[in-house]
Amino acid sequence: MKRLPLFAAVLLCAPLAAQEPADPPTPASVAAAAEPDEWRAIDPADLLVMTLAPDAKGEPREVVIQLMPPPFSQPWVENIRALARAHWWDGTSVYRAVDNWVTQWGDVDEAKPLPEGLSDTDDLPYTSTAKADLSQGTMEPEVVPLPAPDPYTGLPSSDRRISWSGGVSGFSRGWPVAVLPERPPPNLDDIDASATGEIAALVWPIHCYAHVGVARDLESTGTGSELYAVIGHAPRQLDRNIAVVGRVIEGIEHLSTLPRGTGEAGVYETEAERTPIVSVRLGDELPEAKRPRFEYLGSDSESFAEYVDVRANRNDAFYTVPAGGVDVCNVQVPIRRMED
Amino acid sequence: MKRLPLFAAVLLCAPLAAQEPADPPTPASVAAAAEPDEWRAIDPADLLVMTLAPDAKGEPREVVIQLMPPPFSQPWVENIRALARAHWWDGTSVYRAVDNWVTQWGDVDEAKPLPEGLSDTDDLPYTSTAKADLSQGTMEPEVVPLPAPDPYTGLPSSDRRISWSGGVSGFSRGWPVAVLPERPPPNLDDIDASATGEIAALVWPIHCYAHVGVARDLESTGTGSELYAVIGHAPRQLDRNIAVVGRVIEGIEHLSTLPRGTGEAGVYETEAERTPIVSVRLGDELPEAKRPRFEYLGSDSESFAEYVDVRANRNDAFYTVPAGGVDVCNVQVPIRRMED
Repeated sequence: MKRLPLFAAVLLCAPLAAQEPADPPTPASVAAAAEPDEWRAIDPADLLVMTLAPDAKGEPREVVIQLMPPPFSQPWVENIRALARAHWWDGTSVYRAVDNWVTQWGDVDEAKPLPEGLSDTDDLPYTSTAKADLSQGTMEPEVVPLPAPDPYTGLPSSDRRISWSGGVSGFSRGWPVAVLPERPPPNLDDIDASATGEIAALVWPIHCYAHVGVARDLESTGTGSELYAVIGHAPRQLDRNIAVVGRVIEGIEHLSTLPRGTGEAGVYETEAERTPIVSVRLGDELPEAKRPRFEYLGSDSESFAEYVDVRANRNDAFYTVPAGGVDVCNVQVPIRRMED
Repeated sequence: MKRLPLFAAVLLCAPLAAQEPADPPTPASVAAAAEPDEWRAIDPADLLVMTLAPDAKGEPREVVIQLMPPPFSQPWVENIRALARAHWWDGTSVYRAVDNWVTQWGDVDEAKPLPEGLSDTDDLPYTSTAKADLSQGTMEPEVVPLPAPDPYTGLPSSDRRISWSGGVSGFSRGWPVAVLPERPPPNLDDIDASATGEIAALVWPIHCYAHVGVARDLESTGTGSELYAVIGHAPRQLDRNIAVVGRVIEGIEHLSTLPRGTGEAGVYETEAERTPIVSVRLGDELPEAKRPRFEYLGSDSESFAEYVDVRANRNDAFYTVPAGGVDVCNVQVPIRRMED
């Protein structure tokens, strides 16, 4: 019996399919087979738990957000910690949703006073500086580049050397990032030829699906009180133009399925359309039993390298033509709840 | 008075902001300024109107899908026309939704007999053959390449010449496509040096947000009865592995906001969760007054070239660092309802 919907479902969501040992690896099977020490625990202090009002059926809605680690966007991240510790978001709302763009929350009227002591984030850069040692092929902060800078060419993608003639995207400490040599760059011909010595580069976080950024006006970089989550194709044009501060690691569907706003720029026209925010708490503020415990697959692990290669070259049962490359935002970093 | 949410809204959705004549162009301003003859009418016979049951508030839900033009995916597109003419989808449902992946519809039980005369689509390729004349820089079917094959490098992106040493993405007749020289390629060094003569290439449609594809099982390529729409980041690994047959040009929010399924692979566990499909009609089957009339900005027009450049190098008020490149799926082809 042909059961297309189930098959189709399995095929469109191959990671959920059971794999025989002899089957080609899938992203899910690679992550599942990773060694325990390749997984890194996420500090509960780096997690925000946002509790929304229950849905129309009375079901609870909880969104867990992981905050960015140093050196990325730290002034905004610290403001967000301060806002959470002040319980500032309690009683605010999700007030904007635009299809294939963002869902946004905070204080729609901007009438609520901000807590004391937030950092002045104006005039701060959205990029960080990285130092690369070309002779060693290392960078601080560490960045593991995607194997191929030009995806979808069908060419083999095994060369992981960072190309200094252009930019590169990759992963740093579990996060997708972009890297670019300082502009104007040093003599790139010399560097390519000698491949020794240190050079500086800019590195910055990327807007992928479910990533969280700081809404701002034309004159500022935003305090961190108004946040948005990406609910569509990665809006990479926002990179370096806005602070990326985290990502939703559980419960994104509570933001992505909200009705789209019909007011200007997708802001809800009536209060009734908004989703009330009951509370936002840092993970380490919660009682031990409710503390969120997650782990991610380390960017520098062998299993992560294999995971990237499999994502770039799918050849399990459903796939007849491996892509030969992969977009950085299609390499979702494996993150899971830790077992007790 | 600082009104962050409104500003933030405008900023995150700059195309909606009013532009002074002296302001740098935005994608929306470029499209709005295009000449009437740069817009191409979409034949109502190339449109499907899918009417879903009204939502919980009794509001109507209509989804308009544009079907792919030749030479792309035509056997499946013809099957879809036949299914629509047979009113086959009437009484079926939207039965699956997976976050950052797809919403899928058709006959969940696969019990409904298919109409007579559908093409056998098995063993058909997902790619088409293109002929390129390197001396003229032309291709049939015409493909207008993206300016830069390696986005986000920060390098200027004005070179529109197709790079034959790798692949390229671009636009053909209003659709995002990928192009790759035939494998094994002819002598690429000779071609790069002489830049004359014709060579063959493969060209295929791309899975971008809101694009519609044909669900299938492991053994077939699908008939076209089970369809899905992308509701997340472009799943490019599906390119060349599944037939892309169209895109939602109006009403994608009726599919993207549906609750995510909790059954295997995101299939709804109960019938009550499914969204009934009242009818699916080809545009030319509808009475004159209800016939959908849309137009798109031609890929070969000067305004479209400017539109791509602006998308790749945003420098209107919100943007301080232009990206210097753009992902093909972030160049949403301008489509609008025609004025009466």
